[in-house]
Formats: sequence, structure tokens, C-alpha cells
Amino acid sequence: MLFEVAAIFCGALSGGLAGVRKNFDIFGVLLLAWATGLGGGLLRDVLIGDIPPVGIADWRFVTAALSAGLIIFFFHPGLQRMRRAVVVLDAGALAIFVVIGATKGIQFGVGPFAAVFVGMLTGIGGGLIRDLLVDEVPIVLRERELYAIPATVGATAAVVLGATGTLNQITGIVLVVMIFGLRLVSLKLRWSAPGPWQGFGRRRPR
Amino acid sequence: MLFEVAAIFCGALSGGLAGVRKNFDIFGVLLLAWATGLGGGLLRDVLIGDIPPVGIADWRFVTAALSAGLIIFFFHPGLQRMRRAVVVLDAGALAIFVVIGATKGIQFGVGPFAAVFVGMLTGIGGGLIRDLLVDEVPIVLRERELYAIPATVGATAAVVLGATGTLNQITGIVLVVMIFGLRLVSLKLRWSAPGPWQGFGRRRPR
Amino acid sequence: MLFEVAAIFCGALSGGLAGVRKNFDIFGVLLLAWATGLGGGLLRDVLIGDIPPVGIADWRFVTAALSAGLIIFFFHPGLQRMRRAVVVLDAGALAIFVVIGATKGIQFGVGPFAAVFVGMLTGIGGGLIRDLLVDEVPIVLRERELYAIPATVGATAAVVLGATGTLNQITGIVLVVMIFGLRLVSLKLRWSAPGPWQGFGRRRPR
Repeated sequence: MLFEVAAIFCGALSGGLAGVRKNFDIFGVLLLAWATGLGGGLLRDVLIGDIPPVGIADWRFVTAALSAGLIIFFFHPGLQRMRRAVVVLDAGALAIFVVIGATKGIQFGVGPFAAVFVGMLTGIGGGLIRDLLVDEVPIVLRERELYAIPATVGATAAVVLGATGTLNQITGIVLVVMIFGLRLVSLKLRWSAPGPWQGFGRRRPR
Repeated sequence: MLFEVAAIFCGALSGGLAGVRKNFDIFGVLLLAWATGLGGGLLRDVLIGDIPPVGIADWRFVTAALSAGLIIFFFHPGLQRMRRAVVVLDAGALAIFVVIGATKGIQFGVGPFAAVFVGMLTGIGGGLIRDLLVDEVPIVLRERELYAIPATVGATAAVVLGATGTLNQITGIVLVVMIFGLRLVSLKLRWSAPGPWQGFGRRRPR
Repeated sequence: MLFEVAAIFCGALSGGLAGVRKNFDIFGVLLLAWATGLGGGLLRDVLIGDIPPVGIADWRFVTAALSAGLIIFFFHPGLQRMRRAVVVLDAGALAIFVVIGATKGIQFGVGPFAAVFVGMLTGIGGGLIRDLLVDEVPIVLRERELYAIPATVGATAAVVLGATGTLNQITGIVLVVMIFGLRLVSLKLRWSAPGPWQGFGRRRPR
């Protein structure tokens, strides 16, 4: 619970910053913070049938997201200098969301394929919705950074642990740390995922 | 029921106009009218679990939205001169949607936080979907007009009335009139919501 | 089942191509292929209450979409020369999706209006989501080709057959062939749907 609140808060920060960058008014900044912090979980809950989704029903989650939005609204000039910290916090949010999302999928009995998918989507969904709302191609698709790949690997690992009966608080936290680490290492070393393969089937130059 | 049909019709007008402005074909104009008139309720119903959503299942609602789209398709040159009337009708639709949405949330037992949220979303959701479909930043986020704020205030008031057992047809209509009035007064007086605060944490000029 | 897998594969091809065109990385190409091949069915399942949606739960469907994405990722230079084949395959996918979607709507008892709607949406939804994710106005709205109209006509026919108790495997396949044919004929003859009517209510030139 505490982990999830923290992840929502951290995720919502990047949404608030996107709203400030677009010069939205207070409502727009808060809505974007909410959508970014809670949007991934919202998609997950609709897909696994947890109605109403916790992202609109649980006051602790809603409060966490709106607090992040308010802090950004009032203190964004200072926070924009802390850009690197926001990226690190966002990586932590990604890791927590993925493990919680996959675990919830397993608990709702949606099957392994769907559980991997909703785990990954809980992680990347918030940023996806944020980018759609500010009318940009989602960063997770556009940038070649390793963001969705740690999410997918982590969700798969969680589902494998779940299937073997070894997913518990301790292994869950280990997974969070591993996803977080993979994301940070890939940023540090500037790893990138490959773009469209150019080798096969190309017309020979004459 | 009659109120809701009227609100859907009025909301769908702005969707049809957006389709005409983009020079869409008849199907595009009708789909945008439908999505704008019924999209907010559709999101609401998915989030509170009223499946299938009335926006695709109730022929009176679907007919109202498609009629508005057809009228726009054939008579838009005349209607574009009546721009001010469309804005007023849209304010009425907003007010009705918010009160109906919050009331439905309460009836489905989703809790106060979620009921406020779905009330607000029923009001602003249609325009949000319209703007996403024509690939623009949603007006409700971009413009600083008071649009979402009357919606949120009204939804909160409805939930408070509901919790104290005093939400009925009469108080509901009073609420609709108040939200409608707040929206019109704010337009007339050109009120706007504040943009990102510039005061705190800014680097001092040297 | 086999029909549906084939339709998902064909639909996913156009999603993968859109990802390659935008120069997305491997994850982006696969996600777009998945969203295009399975997005229409996903919307349908959420709207009719089949949770979790087959588009995330059924490994055969997910595998079909991801295979199409991988093939595009590695062999796109050759496939881009086969543009015409992709359009034909996509027309086939549309026809299959519409009939399956409307049939599923009927089976879930959502009523005739909703069944027509989800049939049409199963057909056009994947491409709609694809275009939103690459930040473009959906082709189905922008282009005046007959795409959504065969879908709507076909879904209506399926619901009429269903209501008269004559929707079965044979009439279903006949419907698929008719939607497919209507789409191909309209492409061949360059039929287009009419744009906004200019005749009524226009201000007279002075």
C-alpha cells in the first residue's frame, strides 16, 4: 500500500510537469498528474474487472496523485532543476507498478498472458495516457530507451514466480529492485532497443 | 430521461461541428457527434460497471446523438453563424451530464470519491474524446476557461447532497441551473483559472 | 477461431508497418501490431463485459499479432513493396472482425443497437487506436474511402440475421464475403462517401 502510494506520487510528478510545460491551468495540471499517476492502474482495473477502479475510488491514491500535481503547480521552477531526480523517481514508480500490476492480475485469475500484459501496462499506461492527452506520440514508443522492456521482463518474472508459488513480499521487493536497477543501468549506459531491421528483403541497389 | 436526451443532442452538436470543420465524410461527422454526445457517459458506465453502456445500448440516446450529427452535416453553414447558441447549449449539456453522472455513480455504490470523479468525467469526457479523435490537445486542458471547474464543483455538491439524503429531482434541477449559471457567468465575465504559479523556487536573476 | 486468428494477423500487419514508418524500436513495433490487431476486439470486450478481454488473455490471438509485428520488423523493406496485398488482407480482416464482433455482441445479449455498434467497432477499432498512438487523425475519419460504411452495413446485416434466427456459419461466411467484396469494389472504383453538405443555410454571396 505504502509502496503503491509512493509510486503514484512519483508517477504523477511527471504528469504535472507535462501540464506545466504546456502551460495548462490548475485543473489541467491536476488532471494530467492524476491521469499519469493513476492511468496505468485504471486501464489494468478495467481490463481485469476490478470495478470501480482503485484509481478513482481509493482516496489515498487520488490524494497522492493530486498532491503531486499541486506541488508541481506551485514549485515547478525549482523542480525542473531536479530533472534527474524525477527520472529516478519515475523509474522507481515503473518498477513498483509492474510488480503490483502483475500480482493483481494473478489474484484476479486472468491467466498468465493477461497478467504479464496488465503488469506491463500498469507500468507504462500512465505515461502513455499523459502523452496522448498532450497530443504527442507516446515517449515509450518514440524513444528507444529501455523503459517498456524492463517492464515486460519484470512482469514476466512476476508471473513465473506466481505460477511456481514463490511470489511473496520478499521476492516481490527483489523484483522491484531488479526492474529499477535495469532501468537505471540502461539509462546510465545509454542502452537502446534496436529500430526496424534493415537487412532482409531490401531491393538491391543497381 | 428527457433532460439526458436533450443534453446528448446538445453535446453532439459540437462534435458534429468539429467533424465538419475537419471536412470529414458523413460517417466521420456522425461518429464524432456520437462520441461527443455519448462519450462521457460511456467512460462513466465502463468505470462504474454498467455494461453494456447506455451510450451504445439505449436507442433513444443513440438516436439523439446521430440526429444532431445529421442536422450538422446538412445545415452546418447556418449553424456556424449560431456559434454563440451552440456554446450556451453545450453549457446546458455540461450541467445536466454532471448531475446525472454523479447521481448514477452514487446509485451504483462506487463511493464518494469515485462518484465525484465520474460526475465530472460525464461532463467533460465527450469533449475530451472529440478532441483526441481530431488530434488536438483537449480544449478543456488547453483553454483556461472555467469548464471543468464548474463540473467538479457541481459533482461534489451532488455527492454531498446524496450523502445527506437530500438529492432529489428538485435539488438536482437546482444544481443543474447553478452549474449552467456558473459556466455562463464565467464566460460572460471572462473568468479564467490560474496557470502554473511562477512565485516559488525560481532561480534568482543575477 | 481460425478465421479470427487470420484476421488478427492481417490487421496487425498494418500496425507493424505504421510503427516501422515512425521508426519505432522493436517494442514500439510489436505494441502497435498488437494494438491494431487486437484493439478493436479489446474495446468490444470491455463494452460487452467479456473480462478479461480475449485480446490480452488468449495466447493464440496474442501470438498471431506479435508474429505479424515481428515479420514486419524484420522483413518490412520487402513488405512495403507489397502494399496492395496488405490493403487486401486488411479488407479481409475488417470483414471477419465485423461479423465476429456483431455475433459476439448478440451472444452476450447486449441488444441490437449495441450489437451493431460493437460489430462496427471491432472492425474499425484497431486502426483507430493505431492512428491515435502515432498521433494522427484516424484514417477512418479522415479519408473518404468506404471503410466504416461496409463495416456498419455488415454489422447491421449480421444483427438482422441474428434477430431472425438465420445467423449461422454459412450465412456468416456469406456476410464476410459481401463486406470484403464491398470494400474491394469501392476501392477499385474509387467510391467515396460524401463530405459535409454545402447546400442548405449558406449565406448568399452578395
